[in-house]
Amino acid sequence: MSEPPISRFSSPDLGDVPKDVRERIEAVQEKSGFVPNVFLALARRPDEFRAFFAYHDALMEKPGALTKAEREMIVVATSGLNNCQYCVVAHGAILRIRAKNPLIADQVAINHRKADLTPRQRAMLDFALKVAARSNEIDEADYETLRGHGFTDDDAWDIAAIAAFYAMSNRLANAFSIRPNNEFYAMGRESPR
Amino acid sequence: MSEPPISRFSSPDLGDVPKDVRERIEAVQEKSGFVPNVFLALARRPDEFRAFFAYHDALMEKPGALTKAEREMIVVATSGLNNCQYCVVAHGAILRIRAKNPLIADQVAINHRKADLTPRQRAMLDFALKVAARSNEIDEADYETLRGHGFTDDDAWDIAAIAAFYAMSNRLANAFSIRPNNEFYAMGRESPR
Amino acid sequence: MSEPPISRFSSPDLGDVPKDVRERIEAVQEKSGFVPNVFLALARRPDEFRAFFAYHDALMEKPGALTKAEREMIVVATSGLNNCQYCVVAHGAILRIRAKNPLIADQVAINHRKADLTPRQRAMLDFALKVAARSNEIDEADYETLRGHGFTDDDAWDIAAIAAFYAMSNRLANAFSIRPNNEFYAMGRESPR
Amino acid sequence: MSEPPISRFSSPDLGDVPKDVRERIEAVQEKSGFVPNVFLALARRPDEFRAFFAYHDALMEKPGALTKAEREMIVVATSGLNNCQYCVVAHGAILRIRAKNPLIADQVAINHRKADLTPRQRAMLDFALKVAARSNEIDEADYETLRGHGFTDDDAWDIAAIAAFYAMSNRLANAFSIRPNNEFYAMGRESPR
Amino acid sequence: MSEPPISRFSSPDLGDVPKDVRERIEAVQEKSGFVPNVFLALARRPDEFRAFFAYHDALMEKPGALTKAEREMIVVATSGLNNCQYCVVAHGAILRIRAKNPLIADQVAINHRKADLTPRQRAMLDFALKVAARSNEIDEADYETLRGHGFTDDDAWDIAAIAAFYAMSNRLANAFSIRPNNEFYAMGRESPR
Amino acid sequence: MSEPPISRFSSPDLGDVPKDVRERIEAVQEKSGFVPNVFLALARRPDEFRAFFAYHDALMEKPGALTKAEREMIVVATSGLNNCQYCVVAHGAILRIRAKNPLIADQVAINHRKADLTPRQRAMLDFALKVAARSNEIDEADYETLRGHGFTDDDAWDIAAIAAFYAMSNRLANAFSIRPNNEFYAMGRESPR
Repeated sequence: MSEPPISRFSSPDLGDVPKDVRERIEAVQEKSGFVPNVFLALARRPDEFRAFFAYHDALMEKPGALTKAEREMIVVATSGLNNCQYCVVAHGAILRIRAKNPLIADQVAINHRKADLTPRQRAMLDFALKVAARSNEIDEADYETLRGHGFTDDDAWDIAAIAAFYAMSNRLANAFSIRPNNEFYAMGRESPR
Repeated sequence: MSEPPISRFSSPDLGDVPKDVRERIEAVQEKSGFVPNVFLALARRPDEFRAFFAYHDALMEKPGALTKAEREMIVVATSGLNNCQYCVVAHGAILRIRAKNPLIADQVAINHRKADLTPRQRAMLDFALKVAARSNEIDEADYETLRGHGFTDDDAWDIAAIAAFYAMSNRLANAFSIRPNNEFYAMGRESPR
Repeated sequence: MSEPPISRFSSPDLGDVPKDVRERIEAVQEKSGFVPNVFLALARRPDEFRAFFAYHDALMEKPGALTKAEREMIVVATSGLNNCQYCVVAHGAILRIRAKNPLIADQVAINHRKADLTPRQRAMLDFALKVAARSNEIDEADYETLRGHGFTDDDAWDIAAIAAFYAMSNRLANAFSIRPNNEFYAMGRESPR
Repeated sequence: MSEPPISRFSSPDLGDVPKDVRERIEAVQEKSGFVPNVFLALARRPDEFRAFFAYHDALMEKPGALTKAEREMIVVATSGLNNCQYCVVAHGAILRIRAKNPLIADQVAINHRKADLTPRQRAMLDFALKVAARSNEIDEADYETLRGHGFTDDDAWDIAAIAAFYAMSNRLANAFSIRPNNEFYAMGRESPR
Repeated sequence: MSEPPISRFSSPDLGDVPKDVRERIEAVQEKSGFVPNVFLALARRPDEFRAFFAYHDALMEKPGALTKAEREMIVVATSGLNNCQYCVVAHGAILRIRAKNPLIADQVAINHRKADLTPRQRAMLDFALKVAARSNEIDEADYETLRGHGFTDDDAWDIAAIAAFYAMSNRLANAFSIRPNNEFYAMGRESPR
Repeated sequence: MSEPPISRFSSPDLGDVPKDVRERIEAVQEKSGFVPNVFLALARRPDEFRAFFAYHDALMEKPGALTKAEREMIVVATSGLNNCQYCVVAHGAILRIRAKNPLIADQVAINHRKADLTPRQRAMLDFALKVAARSNEIDEADYETLRGHGFTDDDAWDIAAIAAFYAMSNRLANAFSIRPNNEFYAMGRESPR
């Protein structure tokens, strides 16, 4: 069987992409050992590539009260809601690694109510999923609930913004049929305990 | 009655925002005569501001086969689906102006099937709304339908990417309660005919 | 471009409709300066025309505790839910005029939770939208909530009956493709302040 | 057990209602042997009573290509969709009697796809249910399908108008908790064959 | 008109089914005076037949705190939700007989909120319908509500298990087009009072 | 951290369960190396345990045209739709092993349209998911589609019956909060190629 395509759109040769885009791709390859397909798929549009990853980094890599594992929980839960195969598989791997927990990603992707979460994390995902599914119904009562779990207004912004960014990302990956790299499926599944 | 707030989050003083962000805000003020509230709301987070508007410009301002009015149709139709008051009102104004049509925005926001559109535009919005509402069900048959109306693969990318970007934008505006500026409501309502 | 049709059904010549129907149409033309298309569309069926407008007048024109602007808010909010272009555009105009507020109709049509409403009006629309969307789930707790905002049982009847009447009207306008007159779009958009 | 109430709103004494309303009620009592509760519930508002039954008669009693049994099928199918107990039970009885078929009402109320219908009747109910549930998606293709089953434009109007009228009626009965008279349940259940 | 088929799948001759299956069928015929079609439809697969009715008996016939009428209420309410004609008609008959109430089945099938139920029965059906429609959202608060109405953990198990079993049964009857026997429609409709 | 519970209901000691139930549990432990929690959870009710596993074996273990891997695909796809954590995790493991494919379970659980399936398998899952989500809309056209992919009527029965059985099983596991054993998550993830 021939290798299945990265996405339904052809990807450019790495030699043909702008230098900054290529360097970003080479950096992730160095770090991960492979190039996640979303990088190759979006490289077809360098300006969109740059904005997408700048936005990603601003939300997922910056300092803040949410741990990196918690941010990935938001990604996996909302991507499960949107039935986005690329995002659940790829970010599931990242979540397992960042949380040092081989079970948490599958739990959160399928039903966060049954996952091994703290009540604070459960409230975080309840809010994120409401942003993802029914953002028009968000009101001050939702922020009040978050405050009751110790989240500041800036934390609430982060949760909403991550849910919103992956609302976009899920739709891109679904519409473009971006295929998760085979490497993601098994990453982080060995128990650290 | 006091002026209602720009959003549920406080906005920074313009004197406190980074120079490039402030310049972007001043440029839009110069051009429009006022500062659309989304600029002030997002200025609270300069990195996110920069990525958001870079992405916006890459999709909405670049050359391409879709006219600028058609891109705004995608924004208004998908924002109507998501019940996003800011985006329907603000982009409704832009659509009226770009399409030189005082009726089209309200038509598209409420029910694109009854709007004064060409069959090609109707197909464009059918696809955009499917990306917005059920992106997991998109498949090659949808692209085939677009091709039957003369859309290339790159046009299809543009439609999907605009729908996806406003899936994010709608959720931000809804979750943050960004208020549309009063100026937008009446813009472009005079008939050019 | 030729004038688009009033609806997908042909309308009778005014000379051919019964006298009472014609007089009603002439009266609205006198008052508004044009004949709203729903009058011409329904004139095809004089008995239905008479019952429709008798019902309309019984709910929308009679004395009562709800202001005429509040009744139009119910129409616009529920018509937005049902994606009825005719009703949102036509009653949006009436709402702007009756409320002397150029912003309120677009706000209520898209998301009443973000509209410039009193808590009492918000509760009124919450109830109306539940009648429109999930009337089978209405129970005494809903009436209790209304009472907490000062609505009597008769006010509750009015809210429910208006929501129900436009559940019918929206379906007629959608099924018959009744086109909103171009005049409606710009009416009442000048600020009275 | 005391008699359960007719609706959540009190009904007027028959001696206190206007003469024409009382005569209508007495006529139905004479014909049916009891007064269906919707008459007593709506008598609280004589103007609305008059318009409601005028509309009802214009759609359900007038000559036309749809048989009276077929019109009741539309009522029962759409009332089932809207979970309206009053309308399913009361019009189920009328349907059994008019169709001389003790099985058809329960079949149509639960799932018209499994009911003993002609293909023409199935198409009629498919259209009626689309008007009831998603009228914003009705387009010319739906009318074309009806034409393929021999329905004229005027028949299509009738189907849509009956579905729309009961969209209103279902919401009134649900919101007002109008109780179906006990008599309806057993009517027309004896097989005429 | 020829007799309509029992289901879309052919049923075996009774002479060809295993002895235990045939005896079960003969027993129900003796008791009811006719063979409910689900027995004939499932006899095509003896192992599935045996497991289905063993499961049925374990839930519906065993001793327990729920009355047999209450168990049938769960069946009728969830089968109404799933639009299962066979189950609503057949179990509606059983419910009328077991509850000695000719009205209750139609009430519960259409809208349990308007049915003549005790608050405890209403809570039972609220829980059963949540299991049927959104079991992923069940949590301890739902069990707490049941406890407030006097239901033990074992009662809660029974309610959930019956709702789950008929989630299966409804899907089998719908997918196989199992037709309710004509006998069911009129059973138990005479008032015992 | 203490071991999380098997389900929200207490499970009996193995010494207290009937002999046949205990032997079934010991057999699965011998074969798998651990006892899947659904066995312990259902052992609380021996009659239901027996019927459940008899039904399971009749559908999943018998000879037939569907491979065992294909049957597990149906389980995983429909359990994903129903957000059943136990069933997706446990049957995902079984699917990976039976299909000798470490990727297929996550693909099918999230979005079968993007999974590495043959067109025949895609059609099988389309049908199974319709049975799971909208069984009331199943009609002969669905069986016709299956026939076009080489499925016989008996194959169609199998697909529908498996989807229906897991509609029950998903609701039981969700309502009872049955926790997937930790062992399942990593099973079958090593590539056999």
